[in-house]
Amino acid sequence: MNAQAGADAPAFASLYAEVQQFYASHMQRLDSGAADEWADDFTQDGSFHPPTLPQPVRGRAALAAAVRDAHAGLRAAGEQHRHWHGMLSVTPQDDGSLHVRCYALVFATPKGGEPRPHRSCVCEDVLVREDGELRINRRTVTRDDMP
Amino acid sequence: MNAQAGADAPAFASLYAEVQQFYASHMQRLDSGAADEWADDFTQDGSFHPPTLPQPVRGRAALAAAVRDAHAGLRAAGEQHRHWHGMLSVTPQDDGSLHVRCYALVFATPKGGEPRPHRSCVCEDVLVREDGELRINRRTVTRDDMP
Amino acid sequence: MNAQAGADAPAFASLYAEVQQFYASHMQRLDSGAADEWADDFTQDGSFHPPTLPQPVRGRAALAAAVRDAHAGLRAAGEQHRHWHGMLSVTPQDDGSLHVRCYALVFATPKGGEPRPHRSCVCEDVLVREDGELRINRRTVTRDDMP
Repeated sequence: MNAQAGADAPAFASLYAEVQQFYASHMQRLDSGAADEWADDFTQDGSFHPPTLPQPVRGRAALAAAVRDAHAGLRAAGEQHRHWHGMLSVTPQDDGSLHVRCYALVFATPKGGEPRPHRSCVCEDVLVREDGELRINRRTVTRDDMP
Repeated sequence: MNAQAGADAPAFASLYAEVQQFYASHMQRLDSGAADEWADDFTQDGSFHPPTLPQPVRGRAALAAAVRDAHAGLRAAGEQHRHWHGMLSVTPQDDGSLHVRCYALVFATPKGGEPRPHRSCVCEDVLVREDGELRINRRTVTRDDMP
Repeated sequence: MNAQAGADAPAFASLYAEVQQFYASHMQRLDSGAADEWADDFTQDGSFHPPTLPQPVRGRAALAAAVRDAHAGLRAAGEQHRHWHGMLSVTPQDDGSLHVRCYALVFATPKGGEPRPHRSCVCEDVLVREDGELRINRRTVTRDDMP
């Protein structure tokens, strides 16, 4: 068929599926409060640049602590968050890393209530491979509601 | 590139794409009220464990009947539901089946109105292959709004 | 494993990943107001059949103009839209084109506010390959809120 993909298509498809599976596992860890496992998806010196802090959160210990705090707050409030990463644009870089630009939606559901969209964001990740596994070296998130 | 995937990556990518296509078709059948076609995506003895029933719904006839009833109710109410399955974590099992853990969102849109998130769920499926096709042997769904 | 995919599975996986990447880039262009780049994802004579117009929008110049107008309106209103295409059912056709039926959700986020679902749609695309790239030859969209 003339819609057939090019010679490098199988390699790209392998990467694309792996990135999707990586984010699925990564976000399921986040939403279940598995803070250390979530932080292990970053490199040792990985950084997270949220739009709400002047400095990035850097390193697995700090990343895990931030998630632990956030999850405790949600438990106390009786809310379940679900992070959806989607519309993944994956671009291999010359240095061997992967650049991912994607959308992120967070849905919040209170016990006994209906879910609501909580945040709409754009997430840009630099992924690298360590010991055969994808890891986040740098994450930058912007929020659609912020100027 | 050092982000290159391992030797089993093409096989995993094939499975991952097939599972995504399977769910797309499966949920489009559900939302269009194609109850029998939807039920045929289960094995003959397939079971669905919703959070709202003490016993699972078992077998294609019972599954199709449940969807037929639900769809008739939506038509009477003038609402269109859309089921989004995403953040798929797909894990091949030693017995040859696939375990999928994913998020599920249901959006409801009334005629003349704006869509609203209706349910946020976690879905765990055991998929098997029959006659070359993926089929659901067991589905377990939990709802984020329920304790 | 008996869940192993068939002989044509790698070719399908390559196409499926490419279509997902195509939509990610395409919708990111739309939401950032890159009207010409977005229109270039259509063939020269590509058409868009929205549910709100008696005639389709046809050709890249008209498509780009429509997006430029819509984006200017959103900027003036201080709203960011995000288009999510998902639940992609991709079917290669005998003539070499691809038929895609998928769901589309549009989320709208005002500055300083929470996101809300704005539209829930079904999108049917005919994709063809030109100069090695996927392009939309014909797009038909229906809205769940319209009769």
